[in-house]
Parts: sequence; C-alpha cells; structure tokens
Amino acid sequence: MIESLAQATPSKIVLLVIDGLGGIPKCAASCGNGKTELEAANTPNLDMLTKKSVTGLTDPVSPGITPGSGPAHLALFGYDPLKFEIGRGVLEALGVGIDLTPKDVAARGNFATKDATGVITDRRAGRISTEETKIICMQLQDEIKQIDGVEIHITPGKEHRFVLVLRGDNLSDKITDTDPQKTGMKPIPCKAIEPEAKKTAQIIQKFTERAEPLLKPPANTILLRGFAKHPRLPSMQERFKLKPCAIATYPMYKGLARLVGMEILDTGTTPTDEIETLRRHWDSYNFFYVHIKRTDSMGEDGNFEGKVALIEEVDKIIPDILALKPDVFVVTSDHSTPAVIKSHSWHPNPFLLFSKYIVPDDVEIFAERAFMKGGLGRFPAIHAIPLMLANALKLRKFGA
Amino acid sequence: MIESLAQATPSKIVLLVIDGLGGIPKCAASCGNGKTELEAANTPNLDMLTKKSVTGLTDPVSPGITPGSGPAHLALFGYDPLKFEIGRGVLEALGVGIDLTPKDVAARGNFATKDATGVITDRRAGRISTEETKIICMQLQDEIKQIDGVEIHITPGKEHRFVLVLRGDNLSDKITDTDPQKTGMKPIPCKAIEPEAKKTAQIIQKFTERAEPLLKPPANTILLRGFAKHPRLPSMQERFKLKPCAIATYPMYKGLARLVGMEILDTGTTPTDEIETLRRHWDSYNFFYVHIKRTDSMGEDGNFEGKVALIEEVDKIIPDILALKPDVFVVTSDHSTPAVIKSHSWHPNPFLLFSKYIVPDDVEIFAERAFMKGGLGRFPAIHAIPLMLANALKLRKFGA
Repeated sequence: MIESLAQATPSKIVLLVIDGLGGIPKCAASCGNGKTELEAANTPNLDMLTKKSVTGLTDPVSPGITPGSGPAHLALFGYDPLKFEIGRGVLEALGVGIDLTPKDVAARGNFATKDATGVITDRRAGRISTEETKIICMQLQDEIKQIDGVEIHITPGKEHRFVLVLRGDNLSDKITDTDPQKTGMKPIPCKAIEPEAKKTAQIIQKFTERAEPLLKPPANTILLRGFAKHPRLPSMQERFKLKPCAIATYPMYKGLARLVGMEILDTGTTPTDEIETLRRHWDSYNFFYVHIKRTDSMGEDGNFEGKVALIEEVDKIIPDILALKPDVFVVTSDHSTPAVIKSHSWHPNPFLLFSKYIVPDDVEIFAERAFMKGGLGRFPAIHAIPLMLANALKLRKFGA
Repeated sequence: MIESLAQATPSKIVLLVIDGLGGIPKCAASCGNGKTELEAANTPNLDMLTKKSVTGLTDPVSPGITPGSGPAHLALFGYDPLKFEIGRGVLEALGVGIDLTPKDVAARGNFATKDATGVITDRRAGRISTEETKIICMQLQDEIKQIDGVEIHITPGKEHRFVLVLRGDNLSDKITDTDPQKTGMKPIPCKAIEPEAKKTAQIIQKFTERAEPLLKPPANTILLRGFAKHPRLPSMQERFKLKPCAIATYPMYKGLARLVGMEILDTGTTPTDEIETLRRHWDSYNFFYVHIKRTDSMGEDGNFEGKVALIEEVDKIIPDILALKPDVFVVTSDHSTPAVIKSHSWHPNPFLLFSKYIVPDDVEIFAERAFMKGGLGRFPAIHAIPLMLANALKLRKFGA
C-alpha cells in the first residue's frame, strides 16, 4: 500500500542506526534497579533531543524474536523480514564485501579436516587462522577460475570460513548443502532440488573435486552450505520514491543497503568521519542511512563499559546532525545487544522520531525504560518507514 | 470471528465521532511545548468523563497512513479498510447525497475545456462556479435520461465537478477512465477491462458523444474517472447483531453509514440538534453513530482557534449523552486533521471508552498527549467495535 501512496519530495530524512543499542541492567533479576548501558551513559545531546521528540520501542520481527542483522535491517528499511528472506550465502557474501549481481549464487564455506577414509573429523579445520585461510583461498582461486563457463570467486572470511560465489547464466540456488553439519560423516554430494538446478549442482561437485587435491591437512576438505541467489528486492527508489544513500563502515551493512537500492558513500571509520560524509553529500540525497557499528561489537564482547563509552561518543555527533536541519530525524537500532548476554537479543529497540509535525511526548531521557512510556508506544519496526515518510510529508492520503 | 460471537442484547452503545479531532501543537519543533487544539480547548465535561473512563490512541489504517473519510470510517465501524475498499466514484456519489443501489455504477466527472482539435487545455474548465455546473447538469439531464435501457443520473458537485450514475442491469465498473489526468491530450475512449463490461463501456462512450454537442466553452467536454459499483458490504445487523442508526449532518457520512446497514435519522445542523435526535430515537436502536463534522472543516481551513471553539461546543453536549445512560459510550475520531497541516493526517486518534465494566486508567485530561498513557494503549481502529461490543456484553466467549 505504501508504494501507491509514496511521492517524491525534497524533504530529507536521516535514519541513525546505532547497532545493538538496547541493553539490560547488569543485575536485572538480582538487584532490580541496575542501569542499562544507555542509562549508565551520559548522553546530554540525546536527552535534549528526546525532550523535543516522540519516542517508543520497536520489535524488529515480533516480541521474543532475536533477529540477525539481515532481517533486523530489512524491517527498518521497510521490508517485511518474513516476506523477504535473504539466504545465508548472500549475507555471508555481503559480510565480506562482495558486490553481488543478480547472476550470482553464493554459499558459505568452511575449510575442514577429513581422515583417510574421507570422514570429517573437524568441521573447522582446527580453526585455522584468518591468515592461513587467505593463503589457501588465493591458491584455490589461482587454480580454479571457471568451471563449465561459470566464473568462480573464492573470498576468505574469518578463521576457517570463506565465501564461494558462482557467477554465470541460468544458475540456481535450489541445490543441497555439502556440509553434513556434524563430524563422523563424509561431505554430502551436492544435489539439485529442481531440474533447472542440475547444472549448478554439477559445478559445485566439480569445484569440490578440483579443490580437494590442492588442499592439505588440517584444511584438507571443503564444506558448503546456505546456497543463495541475490534476492531481487524492489528498491527504495521504486517503492518509496526516495533517493537513498548509506553511510556505513562495515561490509555487511553496505551490502544490505545496496540490496534495497541505496548508494554507498565512501566514509572513514569513526562516527565523526561518518557525519562529515553526511554533511558532504547532504544536497545529493533525501534519505540518509547512517550506521554505527561498534556499539554492537562491544555488546557482543560483553564489554558493558566499552559500550557505554561508545554511546557517549555517538551522543557527541547528534548536534552536528541537527545542524543540517533534517525534516525527519530518527535515532534507533536494528536490534539489542546487551553486554550481559554477549549476543543479539529479543529486547525491543529504543526509537526516537523528531520532526515538525509530531506531538512531543513527555519522555526526557534517551533510554529503554523511559521509552516504555513514549508516545509511539511499542510497534513493529516495519512501521518505521511509513512513519518517517509521513512526517516528511512524502505519503499521499489512502482512499477518499 | 466477531460475527460468530456476537449476540443481540438490549444494551446500548453510543459512538461519538468528532471528525478530524486530533491535532498537533502550533510549534511542535520550535518551542517543544505548544498545545494541540484539544489541549488548548476548555473541556470540563470531557475531562470529567476521562477520569471515569479508559483511554488510548487508534491508528485508522496503520502507523503513518493518512486515511480518507471512507477507510477511516470503515475501520471504526469494524470493517477492515484494506479488505473493503470503496471506489472513488461511490464515495463521490455518497458525498453529494446520492442514494446508491446495487445496480449502480458511479463515476466522478469533471467539466473541462478542449481546443478545436479536441485536445484538453484545462481539466477543470477554469473552475467554473458551482452554480454554472448546476445549470449544465440540469440541461444534460433534461436531454439524456437513458441510454440503451440504462438510467442516466447527472448530479452537480462543487465547482467543475459532477457525479455520473448509471443505473441498470448487468453493469460493470471494470472500465477505463476517460480522463487522461493531464492537459495536452484528448479524452481517452472508454474501454472494457473484462468482456462483461463491454455494454457499460459502450454506454459511457454514447453518453460522452451525446453530451458533447450540448456543451460550450469553457465547459465543452467531459472527463470521467473512478468508475465504481456500490460495494455490497455485509451489514452491521448481520455481522454484529446490532440495530444501528446514524445521526450525521453531511451526505458523505450518511452514505458511509448506509453502506454498512445503518438507518439514517433526520437531524438538524448543530451538535445540540443531533443530541435531540439521539434522545428522540433512544428507544428504537441499540447502536448510535453520532457524527460531528465541523471540527474537521476547521482543521482543513487551518483555523486553530475555530477548531478549539468547536471542540468546546461539543464538550457541552457530553452531559446530555451521559444522561441517557448508554451502556457503552465511546468518544473518538475517524482521523486527525491538525490545523497546522490543513488536511487529514496520519496522527492517531484519541479514543475514550466509558462503561460499567472497564478498569479506569489514571488519565485525567481529554487530549492526545494524555491519552498516550491511556490504559488501552495504541491500537488499530478496527478493534473499536469488538471493544464496544464486549463492554456492552454483546460478545460470547471464544472457544471453551
């Protein structure tokens, strides 16, 4: 429905995504009054902005569901994460910075150890180092450049991981994993799930057969899973009549932004660098996705104080964004990453919306608990884009 | 599901719809503490009622979506506005007070100006006056009463607008607009989209051919769009076992009420007149839709103070409604119309529910910001009818 109502206007929207922002108190159950990372952080600028804004909490997918970065971002970008699923191989490819095309099939690869009978004894090849994996990938890529007219791209990831991309005509991702997902078994020959996928399955088999003789223990075999084609998502330009760009420092988020049609702007590594990029390109776009990564990394590391410090660093860039006078400014996150849990979590995201057309609520502090009383209530993250478009006067009336 | 649980009981429900009620502060972003129309209004009776009620905010369609009067009212009446769409022609016909039948196809018409070659130079015929349009419509109606056995009804609207209704057997609305929606083109011949619509398309063509020779510049041609049949909605009687009536002063709302099976009661033009009508018919119905129009008109005009004054006028009728001792009394709106925006908007509606069976919340003021903390939270307007029915003890248990 949004698609039929969206209209192009010059008004500008900034969506600041502070990854893994939400947290929980260090001693939630035991003391009951501990502070979350956000509550512990000193955030004068975010608090000042909160007083002039309307706030709430969003569920990326639905209550209780912990989302990966893919579905969490899709929801924020206005794409129903239950409808638009992005295959594991594609997410992996985005994560290592591969610029996928619609001709590609991507898979997640592991280097693994097999014994003399071919049975897998270690699915991760003793977690060989990232450096070793880089070397192995280079050697394989030198020897295997194409198979049956299809380009082969081998890109190293972290530790024992790599990404395999096939690029060619009429490829299909309807093929089975070769990774049995446990030791004590042999790798499973790749099979086509639909007749049209026969050629792709054969190429995967040939790849495995050509690669194995080039490998030596502990990384003497290859396991592949999560075959996926580049999903053809309708772009934000088409759907929402926006001219969108992304300012992000990590490949995964640039990749996700590219999937929905955003232009990726070159930027430095700090929040200040990112805001400088925002300023430089202010006149050229009307939707700016700005992604701050390291809050999430600190949460994943269980580093409560580190996350607090990073939140305080992000707080300092808020006045610079406001100085650009965006028509709509949203500060939120894709998902929570409480340092206590050391991983993504199901907790809802703080969501703040600032525009000329809101009724400000009386929330005064930028934090999870304060936002529970926000004027937007608790809502699915998929409504973020309609709210931003509405407040930027970019949506026509529905019905007469 | 509601349909299978509804039961007829004598308990009485009053749904007071104050059109375009919700607003925003005059200076939301700049001063941060301005008052909305509702906050500025002195509403002792609504505030008193609020203290004894449970409150919340509703989204007519979904967050961010600005609804027209049609979908906004359907939602309040318990009809999913995404499932039951009402065509433009039908809404236009309801708006000028035409009592549509299931045999009708209605279209929105413009008188327009064409040049000697037939190309449209002005889609609105220089916005000729409502009076001129009345005269042209009378002349056309005198000459064209039926075509191929189908009745033709031509009703003037505002300025250059009119409504064309075809009434006959086997008509279809699956035909294309003749209005190209821009100047520099000729009107487009009407075509059937499905084989069954051929006859209707031919009648439209014949109508255009017979009408044109009767017209003279600047209103020398006709543009038609939004062909739509009267939607056959299941009535509120069937669905909810109610005996519903409508007290409204404008044709559009009477028409919408008639679409869902309400009886339309004759009434005067002021809120006091409407309450007098309510009192007179109190014993004959058990669901009363009372519609106050002028708050919306004031919002559309950008008249903040005028809207405030009208809200205060409506406040005065609240004791008279309570004196009738309704079992359930809801005060809400179809959509917001902030004077600042001068049009319908996406902001949620204040919703107040008073009945013997509620847990009153601690909200004390009838206004948008206060209702953000209401006990009903924020919810889709489609839930209004189940809530009203439940509080009137008109819904049986679901499951055992």
